[in-house]
Amino acid sequence: MKQIKAGLVGVTGYTGMELTRLLANHPVIRLSHVTSRSEAGKSLRDIYPFLHGLDMGNLTISEPDPEKLARECDLVFLAVPHGAAMEMAAALRASNLKVVDLSADYRLHDASVFAAWYKSGHNQPDVLAEAVYGLPEVHGAAIAAASMVANPGCYPTSAILALAPALQHGVIDPDDIVIDAKSGTSGAGRKAAVGSLFCEVADTFKPYNLGKHRHTPEIEQELSEIAGRNIVVSFNPHLLPINRGIVSTIYTRPVKAITEEAVRDMYVKAYESHIFVRVLPPGTLPEARNVRGTMFCDIAVVYDPRTQRLIIVSAIDNLCRGASGQAIANANLMCGLPVETGLLLAPMVP
Amino acid sequence: MKQIKAGLVGVTGYTGMELTRLLANHPVIRLSHVTSRSEAGKSLRDIYPFLHGLDMGNLTISEPDPEKLARECDLVFLAVPHGAAMEMAAALRASNLKVVDLSADYRLHDASVFAAWYKSGHNQPDVLAEAVYGLPEVHGAAIAAASMVANPGCYPTSAILALAPALQHGVIDPDDIVIDAKSGTSGAGRKAAVGSLFCEVADTFKPYNLGKHRHTPEIEQELSEIAGRNIVVSFNPHLLPINRGIVSTIYTRPVKAITEEAVRDMYVKAYESHIFVRVLPPGTLPEARNVRGTMFCDIAVVYDPRTQRLIIVSAIDNLCRGASGQAIANANLMCGLPVETGLLLAPMVP
Amino acid sequence: MKQIKAGLVGVTGYTGMELTRLLANHPVIRLSHVTSRSEAGKSLRDIYPFLHGLDMGNLTISEPDPEKLARECDLVFLAVPHGAAMEMAAALRASNLKVVDLSADYRLHDASVFAAWYKSGHNQPDVLAEAVYGLPEVHGAAIAAASMVANPGCYPTSAILALAPALQHGVIDPDDIVIDAKSGTSGAGRKAAVGSLFCEVADTFKPYNLGKHRHTPEIEQELSEIAGRNIVVSFNPHLLPINRGIVSTIYTRPVKAITEEAVRDMYVKAYESHIFVRVLPPGTLPEARNVRGTMFCDIAVVYDPRTQRLIIVSAIDNLCRGASGQAIANANLMCGLPVETGLLLAPMVP
Amino acid sequence: MKQIKAGLVGVTGYTGMELTRLLANHPVIRLSHVTSRSEAGKSLRDIYPFLHGLDMGNLTISEPDPEKLARECDLVFLAVPHGAAMEMAAALRASNLKVVDLSADYRLHDASVFAAWYKSGHNQPDVLAEAVYGLPEVHGAAIAAASMVANPGCYPTSAILALAPALQHGVIDPDDIVIDAKSGTSGAGRKAAVGSLFCEVADTFKPYNLGKHRHTPEIEQELSEIAGRNIVVSFNPHLLPINRGIVSTIYTRPVKAITEEAVRDMYVKAYESHIFVRVLPPGTLPEARNVRGTMFCDIAVVYDPRTQRLIIVSAIDNLCRGASGQAIANANLMCGLPVETGLLLAPMVP
Repeated sequence: MKQIKAGLVGVTGYTGMELTRLLANHPVIRLSHVTSRSEAGKSLRDIYPFLHGLDMGNLTISEPDPEKLARECDLVFLAVPHGAAMEMAAALRASNLKVVDLSADYRLHDASVFAAWYKSGHNQPDVLAEAVYGLPEVHGAAIAAASMVANPGCYPTSAILALAPALQHGVIDPDDIVIDAKSGTSGAGRKAAVGSLFCEVADTFKPYNLGKHRHTPEIEQELSEIAGRNIVVSFNPHLLPINRGIVSTIYTRPVKAITEEAVRDMYVKAYESHIFVRVLPPGTLPEARNVRGTMFCDIAVVYDPRTQRLIIVSAIDNLCRGASGQAIANANLMCGLPVETGLLLAPMVP
Repeated sequence: MKQIKAGLVGVTGYTGMELTRLLANHPVIRLSHVTSRSEAGKSLRDIYPFLHGLDMGNLTISEPDPEKLARECDLVFLAVPHGAAMEMAAALRASNLKVVDLSADYRLHDASVFAAWYKSGHNQPDVLAEAVYGLPEVHGAAIAAASMVANPGCYPTSAILALAPALQHGVIDPDDIVIDAKSGTSGAGRKAAVGSLFCEVADTFKPYNLGKHRHTPEIEQELSEIAGRNIVVSFNPHLLPINRGIVSTIYTRPVKAITEEAVRDMYVKAYESHIFVRVLPPGTLPEARNVRGTMFCDIAVVYDPRTQRLIIVSAIDNLCRGASGQAIANANLMCGLPVETGLLLAPMVP
Repeated sequence: MKQIKAGLVGVTGYTGMELTRLLANHPVIRLSHVTSRSEAGKSLRDIYPFLHGLDMGNLTISEPDPEKLARECDLVFLAVPHGAAMEMAAALRASNLKVVDLSADYRLHDASVFAAWYKSGHNQPDVLAEAVYGLPEVHGAAIAAASMVANPGCYPTSAILALAPALQHGVIDPDDIVIDAKSGTSGAGRKAAVGSLFCEVADTFKPYNLGKHRHTPEIEQELSEIAGRNIVVSFNPHLLPINRGIVSTIYTRPVKAITEEAVRDMYVKAYESHIFVRVLPPGTLPEARNVRGTMFCDIAVVYDPRTQRLIIVSAIDNLCRGASGQAIANANLMCGLPVETGLLLAPMVP
Repeated sequence: MKQIKAGLVGVTGYTGMELTRLLANHPVIRLSHVTSRSEAGKSLRDIYPFLHGLDMGNLTISEPDPEKLARECDLVFLAVPHGAAMEMAAALRASNLKVVDLSADYRLHDASVFAAWYKSGHNQPDVLAEAVYGLPEVHGAAIAAASMVANPGCYPTSAILALAPALQHGVIDPDDIVIDAKSGTSGAGRKAAVGSLFCEVADTFKPYNLGKHRHTPEIEQELSEIAGRNIVVSFNPHLLPINRGIVSTIYTRPVKAITEEAVRDMYVKAYESHIFVRVLPPGTLPEARNVRGTMFCDIAVVYDPRTQRLIIVSAIDNLCRGASGQAIANANLMCGLPVETGLLLAPMVP
């Protein structure tokens, strides 16, 4: 098969790092161009010794240059912080490059919602208008037809996949959704910050940004679309002393008489053609390690008759499924490849 | 001051271990007798090398013998598994010993509730009748008058302290309480089990026993008493890859117009005479490490106007506040000492 | 290419678990039969939820039965504890099955050395006589011709690869070798033992079995063969609070004037045709995570002119390179496949 | 007893944090003045929520001002980076304040050695001349008479205590000492640096600065003084994914026939009047957690007759014994208090 040449803008963060890991074994997409302002001139293996011995390690890092990227690539992954991605994406789109943007800049369709949560305006309305929200199970057809994909946030991926079937089938009260989410520390990125130091995170646990996390509007946008009405969720993140993994425990109430079995069957059916979502059998609950390093989203539904609550739990790897792996799945679809190309990995346990 | 001689039945678990740590520096209560069937004949420092160089390390472990305990002790801490504690407590009470039982055997006043959740009957109704639930902030006076104290479970300690003021003042809907609790692994005890191995717990995270944990009826018993009506809670535990610490994130709904500030003030007032409860200022959230090794229970209240939810977060050290430290606090009260005697420790951070 | 059908005897330990992960994506060797006395009758995904959604997860576990294995497999991986492997290997060899034994039972050529270190005699001298020590870089040709391969221990893999070139070229004093090795906890296996509990291993570090570890004679056997004289090493293991990884820091003295550069060049040359050994450039030291989940052995040489010591550091993943991955590499060679078939994985960082 | 008022210059690092923990319960030394350029104006509990509910938490942080410190304090702990401490110490000494400097600036008696390893000159020769190396077991009398104490580095504390008796008694070859040391990450300090991020340290392990660490000359200075001849050591540090703890495994050769028992007896005797050093019984090896949060230095000696090596292992808590606790021990001695005042803590396990 003809190789697809991919560029990676911003290789020094954890999502850039994970893209190199995943593309090292991709059968069709070849990483051909990587950029970083701070590390330009070095080879990839200079900054990532784990890439020694792999062809990709020989790639030379260059300054980000849209024209050069346009000449050398078919598609570009943008792995730079939000804000920085906005104009780079526009420049790349102006050169007709396919773009998968891993930042938050193009996820929210409504620029005013973006402005409210991110405290800065959106200045690329044209690109925003063509951006597709890149959650393959929900928008697979649109992604396949898109040239500009906004890669979902990690928390939203775990929350939307967990809630979509229940909302679509009207099983739960759309006004009573609490998401208690716990994420590994790679979600905080690779920038030097006291709060992300080993000694500040290890052997402890804490909530943060309760009710105020920027992934909230993204979850609400997608769930509202699925439910066909406005959805407001209580989204509450916590920081786990692990590298990778998000577990979301979601508290809902059924609006009619249900059985756990019937809801599970509905979920199994909803995801039967989606290889990356694994609806677990009765008695098995999602666990971060069971999806480590993979695209899997494990989901369990638990009905508690004592309290009449339907608890939905999902687990993903925030770096792979929640960022770089999903970006490659989107790239696969955009290039006409099966979504799982190069991504059907077995979890690393332990 | 006259020393109080304490016995410890069951020294080989984590709660026994923690009792030795805390009593090593207690100014009044002296550990004078320790027992273990499996380690009898050894000295404490043989099984716990961390006690070398401390006087306590020289104590010889003996077989548990109620008569001998009665001769040599003023008070006994029972740190054996539930079930095993039931008859030992009765034997010790028959010898008029003061008892603090760290197991679950005497926490539930209603023997039929015990039987339903623990799948075995209660055969010591007389001792059960005299047992006081040992949460000092709630039952301080009764504890001070008691000879038999049932030491609270770790999760219930974190949940009850977090919810008591709000329920007492009728601020929240008593029919809409969800407790999402996360505990360090020492809560699983020190018995050899594959599920507690390092490689099964490290670098991962998972829920377990959703809606079915045995600490549920204990929480409901105490909250019902506080609220003056029957309370049913959705209690959902998770396992953290840390040694110590419980963080409970509790989702409630106010029943009337509130401000976060007013609720916080109510909490500050409720706990102003309780040295171990720290109601945190605005913007500060509880964190497991901030209470590490101590009796502190940190509490924050957060009102989210978007979703009209009142989120209450509490953090304790499950081994100290949630077990052995609280047992000593109860012993202090039972012996006429200030509750904080020997327990006003500074958290170890990092 | 014609598929090779592999059996796995003993699937419940960490090496069995890792074999399933690695074989899930192997292009030629297909896991067709798995056994476990304790889990017979279940499917693989029942005991390993991480295998949901992968074909392999559907495999039914059966009782170990050499005849059935002989009928259904071309090759068998033995992942049972030492002692248990001895007779099973003999039974499988009697059926002419190719065997890769991950236990220690066939690693030591001299049965009396085995008896001295493992405190039990060896009762299968014929199978022992045909067993090849399965370190591909050292015994590649013999492995390719073998039907019975003893898969090396994890510590020996890291130590032998680090020392082989220096000893072969007579660069270091063969009487002055100290190996300070540190291993992740998966090396202790998956059996329920208090010493391997999360709370006994996390947030701490310790040496164990100094000078007495059973991997010592294995290291000495191989190094003696390489050096052409008897080698005695001081081998000293330590337990790391991580899942996977061995880092060995090896202290030696040069016997003649050397430069760090010349020794590094010698190592580069020694391993230039061995894809899994990465001799790192100046200034880069091996690190456990850089080989996580892979077959890579990273090696650095550091000459300290102040003390005239040559320090050699190696890092491997004890479960992959140190056990299951190496077993597959051996199987590849035994089946006429390139050693790296299905094993050229990119490390997972972070 | 009359209280001693202590100042703390530089409260925002881990050593400053640990000083607050330890002084919170000190019976004589009261922390009365804390400084930080970046946090001046806040209270201690604003930056350290773990100090809520403790008196010390109310202290207001001010800008460092030697004159104010001189007016308000009897003694000052300097917990600022090396370089910054040099002039501050001189200013405080000019005001006749007792000083315990936790930085490296005054540890090396020879300014040229300092210049060679720290790449910058020493400009306070007078203060350097009066500085005593604050290792209580070695220089107790001098410390008691001193007004200026250079608090030892963490690695040197673990190495010197482990080697002192053997060198003093001429048991080991002074030209053949290899120290393989492993430290928790708090040793790297609390500054924002990518290399200290959780995701760069967790679940991995690595050596660094082999043969080149700045603590080397400090170890050599002290060991040379003890041995009465020049000592050069091979000192090799590694980074552990734990918060606290240093374990040093030290490889030596006896110069005459020894028994493990005789060497252990010699160590027991050497430290019998030193409460913080625990020479472990046969079969027990030091472990980081056994000294967690304390001043204990655990030491074991192991003689390996196969290789004729004497292996000495020591464990300390790098933050307590290796920094802040030792600083308080020095302050105790300087103020005429027993060295263990406020420091006889029981280790926190688990």
